[in-house]
Formats: sequence, structure tokens, C-alpha cells
Amino acid sequence: MATTDRKAEIRARSAEVFAEKGFDRASIRDVAKATGLSLAGLYYYYKGKEEILFDIQHEAFTTLLEAHAQALAGVRDPEQKLRRVVDAHLAFFASHIAEMKVMSRDGGQLQGDHADQVGELRRRYARVVRGVVDGIRGRADIDTGVATFLLFGMMNWVYTWYDSKRDGTPADIARAVQEIFLSGMRGGAGGSASRPM
Amino acid sequence: MATTDRKAEIRARSAEVFAEKGFDRASIRDVAKATGLSLAGLYYYYKGKEEILFDIQHEAFTTLLEAHAQALAGVRDPEQKLRRVVDAHLAFFASHIAEMKVMSRDGGQLQGDHADQVGELRRRYARVVRGVVDGIRGRADIDTGVATFLLFGMMNWVYTWYDSKRDGTPADIARAVQEIFLSGMRGGAGGSASRPM
Repeated sequence: MATTDRKAEIRARSAEVFAEKGFDRASIRDVAKATGLSLAGLYYYYKGKEEILFDIQHEAFTTLLEAHAQALAGVRDPEQKLRRVVDAHLAFFASHIAEMKVMSRDGGQLQGDHADQVGELRRRYARVVRGVVDGIRGRADIDTGVATFLLFGMMNWVYTWYDSKRDGTPADIARAVQEIFLSGMRGGAGGSASRPM
Repeated sequence: MATTDRKAEIRARSAEVFAEKGFDRASIRDVAKATGLSLAGLYYYYKGKEEILFDIQHEAFTTLLEAHAQALAGVRDPEQKLRRVVDAHLAFFASHIAEMKVMSRDGGQLQGDHADQVGELRRRYARVVRGVVDGIRGRADIDTGVATFLLFGMMNWVYTWYDSKRDGTPADIARAVQEIFLSGMRGGAGGSASRPM
């Protein structure tokens, strides 16, 4: 197996171990066992579990940034952009539930340069999404920054509750997020009555 | 200090320690130090940090259930009910940011009977909120269960980003959540155009 494939495999198995046991409780031996490697074999690819946690996050944000760049290429309509961003975010995490849980829960455990690098990627990613939310300019009574965080909340909380047997497909969840957020950002300033526009 | 006050104080200091260090990394000595008690003094109130984690969550859900019962008493309008629920949830967590972080991140570390009791309270709480979302019946194209989870996502993700210096008051956040969710649940089935109702 090529090194890049092997590292991807180690990241995927490690994410499952971290998601299950928690990053702190999981030992490097647990990770080695889950990957089917000896400790020495694992250390050939990664210096330790903190480096794996870094690489999981680095890979996730890099992949998301690429997915967004592709998804947004050539799209001009602001609402369509928002739909594409939500689709890409939820499609990625639907196939990376363990990574999502680990990033949400244990992401803050990185140190020094690793923390800085992931922090920079996270901020870049948030800026892309915020730019898309900015483009909607639906209503002056909601701060765009706050709206962006609320959108992330709808999307990132998914790992705590999503059950594919009960809740439909990731595309169903994406559509619900899009409908609530877009109608919400379009809506008038309160009251039960709809406004004539 | 009365025992109930002392226990409340221990919960609050422990939540700060757990939020800062992570539940796994925090030792019972860290907790004792933060509370200003000796280890023996701390053990008089709690058997260990898992029992404190249980009590933090038990107290939070009990308080939220009481707050919701009060907030909903005598209110008939479904949208008003939703506003009250969001106000109560965010008001509680704005004054318990450390508890919110610990519950979201480390809540799953409870074992056995403690896990069962908190799970039951959590489900009761979710049913109350879902009942309120059910009352809105805004649109047939979004599942009520999914909509309820998305609402929780907007509210519970707050601990990851809220900065009172930048983002306004908890009441501002509550209003943004209410506006997006209520307008979102009222909105039509997609498209950029507003519908006449």
C-alpha cells in the first residue's frame, strides 16, 4: 500500500478509536491495534496520537476547502452558493462521522504549531462560509457573523444525533438546513404574520 | 455554608476545571484545589469526579425543565412558546458556559445508572422542546424531529464561539435563533422568491 493510502487508513481507524474512547483515553496501542500495525510500524507513519489528531483535522479542512472551491466554481446566485456549501459540508461529514465527532469534541487538544496550523485552516474555512452568508444579505436585523455560527451549529451538531435509519439521508438533512436557513434569512422582522415583501 | 450551597459551589468550580482541562485530564486534586477544599473535605460531598459530572448534568436538566415549565405556563401561541423555550435555554447556558461545554463534550462519560438517569432527563427535555416545535407545524417538507435537532444545534453550538464582546448579549443570540428558526419554519418550499402566503 502506498504511504498516502496507508496514512489515510490510519487516520480513518484512529478517528474511530478516538470517537469511541475519547482522545485522552485512547492509547497509541489502541490505535496500532485498530490499524493492524505494530507499534513500530505505526511510528513509521506518525510520531504519536497528537500528530494523528493534527493530520485528521488538517486533512478534513483541506478537503472541505477544496470541495467548497469546486462546489462554488461558476455559481453566481447567492442562495445557490449557500446550498452548495451546505451540501458539501454535510456530504463530507456524513462520510466522516467519527472525524466530525473527534474534531468537535477533541479538536482543542492540539498544541503549539499544530494548533496554529489547524486554527488557520479553520478560520479560512469559516471565512469562506461567512462570505457566502454575507452574499445573501437577507435581513439587516441579524448579524452575519452570528448567522454564520448558527449555520455551523445546525451542521456540526449533527454528529450528536444523526441516525440514518430514522432521519433520512444526509441530503435530506442538508435540505432541511438549507430551507430553514434560507427562509430564515429571507424572513421579516418577527411576528406571526407573513409580510407582503 | 449549607450543604446544598457548598455542592452548587463545587459543581460550578468543577465545571470550570473540566471545561478547561477536559474531564479525563482533570484530576480530583485539581477539583479540590479549585474549590478550596481538602481532598477529604471534597469527598464528604462527592464520591469522585464522575459523581460531580453526573450532578452537573442532573442539575442542568432539572433546572432547564423547571425553567421551561415556568416559561410556558399560560402561553398559548405556538410561536411565543418557541421564543420562550429559546430564551430559557440560552439564558441558562449564557450563565453556565463551562457546564455547557462540559455537557456537550464530556457528557457521554457517565456510566451505568448515572448515564441512564441523565439520558432520561435529556430525553424528557428534548420531548418538551420537540412538542413546542410540533406546535408550529410550519411546513410539511421538514421533519419535526430533524427541525428540533437543528434548533438544538443552533443553541448548543454557541459554547464554541460565543464572545460577549463581539456577539452581543445572550438575548441577541436568542433573537437571531428565534428569527431564523421561526421564519425558516414558516417559509415556502425553496426558490428565491417569497410566496404570497
